[in-house]
Amino acid sequence: MRYARPLQHVIDELSRLPGIGPKSAQRLAFHLLRRNPAEVQALGEAIAALPQTVRRCQECFNYSEADLCPVCADPARDRSVLCLVAEAADLMALERANDYRGLYHVLGGLLSPLHGVGPDDLMIPQLMGRLARLPVEEIIIATPPSVEGDATAEYLRQVLAAAGHTRLTRPALGLPVGAELDYDDQVTLIRALQGRREM
Amino acid sequence: MRYARPLQHVIDELSRLPGIGPKSAQRLAFHLLRRNPAEVQALGEAIAALPQTVRRCQECFNYSEADLCPVCADPARDRSVLCLVAEAADLMALERANDYRGLYHVLGGLLSPLHGVGPDDLMIPQLMGRLARLPVEEIIIATPPSVEGDATAEYLRQVLAAAGHTRLTRPALGLPVGAELDYDDQVTLIRALQGRREM
Repeated sequence: MRYARPLQHVIDELSRLPGIGPKSAQRLAFHLLRRNPAEVQALGEAIAALPQTVRRCQECFNYSEADLCPVCADPARDRSVLCLVAEAADLMALERANDYRGLYHVLGGLLSPLHGVGPDDLMIPQLMGRLARLPVEEIIIATPPSVEGDATAEYLRQVLAAAGHTRLTRPALGLPVGAELDYDDQVTLIRALQGRREM
Repeated sequence: MRYARPLQHVIDELSRLPGIGPKSAQRLAFHLLRRNPAEVQALGEAIAALPQTVRRCQECFNYSEADLCPVCADPARDRSVLCLVAEAADLMALERANDYRGLYHVLGGLLSPLHGVGPDDLMIPQLMGRLARLPVEEIIIATPPSVEGDATAEYLRQVLAAAGHTRLTRPALGLPVGAELDYDDQVTLIRALQGRREM
């Protein structure tokens, strides 16, 4: 015997989400059955509407309700700095830090020859198009400090330098604020020492 | 700046689910945006339909599409044995084990004076009503082996004995199959030793 069919359907669909196994899916589904029906319906309708209501910003490829995302539509943002990120989630993390005031460009992933992801699979042609229109003076290459992130950054550095962009930067590597030295990984410690600065 | 409004809505709703924090909710929502729109819509609609399509079995309070759940509707089930469980998820776990052939009764929780849950908040009056109609010879009290589960089992034992039911059983406590003794908790080891049997 299985669950009632609609319940089994929800459990199956939930278990296909990343990080949710059959046990968690079952727990979530049972939780939904105990919740206020109006709330469950609201959640379901919000999810069902997602593909229709959220699209990509035509400029930077951030997620957006309108043609332009709130960052690109904001006339107060500094159009002389462009920050390249792998994913929209990285853009949001930087926005939450509430310090950066320039524009972004979401690459839509990282170069990965092993997985068949080349430059044309990312938003790099679109980036070159934007750079021809925008008065950009600095490009921050904020791909993550990983093998693929570093390789993508190096590729971008070459392409952008060849296109005449001279001010190319990369976020600093070092100890995260609040870190305890004996808990940090060796590579982070080495990078933090290599990047040490005069006090 | 926040996410596009419909995206933020989904993230907020997902973070209200048990075991899903703001970070996981964000990760799930971004995953949904990358998935096939038809699949995302199917998931949303399945969730939205849940409150209307799944109800409680009128006999045993298992989740069901129809008035009677598949167990109660199955004429081949043994109506002389009734297994009391706290939640429908426990019933499903026993069904998956595919050994028990009797009926169930879902109590809908455990007695918890601290949280104001008394006998009338559980399906105990309904249980007494069923027992008057069913030819039950044995009642298995399968509430979990916890403080509240044991207290609920003891309460049920008294009430059911007073109503004239003589064959009241409780599942064995002991080592789980495949257990390593030095990894098991002390209480389980003590109960396993206390319940030891001749070989």
